[in-house]
Amino acid sequence: MNNRIKFLLGIQYPIIAGGMVWCSGWELASAVSNAGGLGLIGSGSMSPEVLKEHIQKCREATDKPFGVNVPLIHHNVAQLMEVIMEEKVPVVFTSAGNPKIWTGKLHEKGIKVVHVIANTKFALKCEQAGVDAIVAEGFEAGGHNGREETTTMVLIPQIRKVTNLPLISAGGIATGGGMLAAFALGADGIQMGTRFAVSKESSASEEFKKLCINIKEGDTILSLKKITPTRIIKNEFYRKIQEAENNGATKEDISQILGHEKSRKGIFEGDITDGELEIGQVSSLIDEIPASKEIIDKIIKEYNDGLKNLIAM
Amino acid sequence: MNNRIKFLLGIQYPIIAGGMVWCSGWELASAVSNAGGLGLIGSGSMSPEVLKEHIQKCREATDKPFGVNVPLIHHNVAQLMEVIMEEKVPVVFTSAGNPKIWTGKLHEKGIKVVHVIANTKFALKCEQAGVDAIVAEGFEAGGHNGREETTTMVLIPQIRKVTNLPLISAGGIATGGGMLAAFALGADGIQMGTRFAVSKESSASEEFKKLCINIKEGDTILSLKKITPTRIIKNEFYRKIQEAENNGATKEDISQILGHEKSRKGIFEGDITDGELEIGQVSSLIDEIPASKEIIDKIIKEYNDGLKNLIAM
Repeated sequence: MNNRIKFLLGIQYPIIAGGMVWCSGWELASAVSNAGGLGLIGSGSMSPEVLKEHIQKCREATDKPFGVNVPLIHHNVAQLMEVIMEEKVPVVFTSAGNPKIWTGKLHEKGIKVVHVIANTKFALKCEQAGVDAIVAEGFEAGGHNGREETTTMVLIPQIRKVTNLPLISAGGIATGGGMLAAFALGADGIQMGTRFAVSKESSASEEFKKLCINIKEGDTILSLKKITPTRIIKNEFYRKIQEAENNGATKEDISQILGHEKSRKGIFEGDITDGELEIGQVSSLIDEIPASKEIIDKIIKEYNDGLKNLIAM
Repeated sequence: MNNRIKFLLGIQYPIIAGGMVWCSGWELASAVSNAGGLGLIGSGSMSPEVLKEHIQKCREATDKPFGVNVPLIHHNVAQLMEVIMEEKVPVVFTSAGNPKIWTGKLHEKGIKVVHVIANTKFALKCEQAGVDAIVAEGFEAGGHNGREETTTMVLIPQIRKVTNLPLISAGGIATGGGMLAAFALGADGIQMGTRFAVSKESSASEEFKKLCINIKEGDTILSLKKITPTRIIKNEFYRKIQEAENNGATKEDISQILGHEKSRKGIFEGDITDGELEIGQVSSLIDEIPASKEIIDKIIKEYNDGLKNLIAM
């Protein structure tokens, strides 16, 4: 495949595993990179010390490129970035913030920068900041999400219209057909979170993974819109938030119900009742917990079969 | 193109123009059918007498197949169906109701039946009812919408997983790239509402069409969730609904604000402030008001170019 994302990141397939809180440790990142994609360590749920350990273990487990995702709203972002630059991680995916702040510094150290966006305004900011590529994430995606609620189907052509930057499509993709659709819409690569969150090497609890493979249509929802729109499973925790919102709760009321580390409690510790369970809408399509290599091999096969079908028509 | 929807409906391209209230009269339906797609008359905003007139004028304006969309919640559904059977319309698209009620009666008269759904439960009901094809409509779509909020990217593979029925993808499609993506996801055809609502032959007011071509990302939203989830433009009418909901309004309160014929006021009469302006999210991609034939020709060209690009990769 003649592809900009492959060449930029030095990988075999233009498939990135999203750097997800409580799921994306060194086990998942190295497994995805070893299988020909790009694995990301999710630093959103890590201290600088824990991140350093995961980077070092990832490097021991693979000689392929891998990356780290850094949400720029992390309270320790400067120290996380220091660890990343010290450890000479090949690529950083930044999200939830202004791409101008870190891109230059990371580039000076020879680190590639990809920024996650959900609208054209930020796509243009990325271009000005000189990032190497962007991830455009649709409304379907799990976890934090854009306020415009633009779906992947609309977002990818919209972004492609305003910029020629290498473009990675995220949100709603878990199959080779989804990958082919993303490419038809104008993407150069795909990022999958949910599909890899529900894999053998994901650090999520077994309780969370089992719940995810039993999810049906309509079982996830974009919630917490008064704080940061976040796609979660409709469990007891969600219902408490929803009830408060229906009764006219303020942003502060909602923050109090949300509290601290509710995603750790849910995803990592397996409290599927009272935890915050971030996952994408495409979980309804997922019914097994395979190894990352099986996921990637299957998607590439489905992509090739799908392309043959399109040609045969 | 070797395609089930083309053969089923006897058309040149597997492209359907959604039967939209206040947009889809005989002018739009016949223009789309003459251009090689399937035009639908939208009976949702018509009395049986008005529908009869539109069917007869459509037949005078084209010798190609065309259809009528019937929302099964229409208070005059039996009389609308009587007109359709009398006039021997070749195909009926039913929506918002149970496909069992009318499919058999329409089939007896030799009329093909396509039913619009937004989840697998209704896809299976359609199979049992013996419909000829289904339209699966994603969260991006304008107007009435499913409660699960499943986007086209997730919905199409989800429906394809449970049924082999001919499948038409709707929601978020306005380009040949979108059509190619829908096919990659498993669809056999596409239905576009928004793209044809903003066409020369659409019956919508000039005020509404002009507003639609200036729409930006995030300017439409799925609203009215306490009644029937409906995607509309965020205008003054929407803000009244939103404010009431934020203050804990009941279903009855919202119904009172909604009142009667607010979509007629907005779409047809051009009151873009206080009218209910139903349109899809993909309106943000649309910046001109071409003739239906130009729309179809452009989409087919984009589809072919997009397929060549996928092959070249």
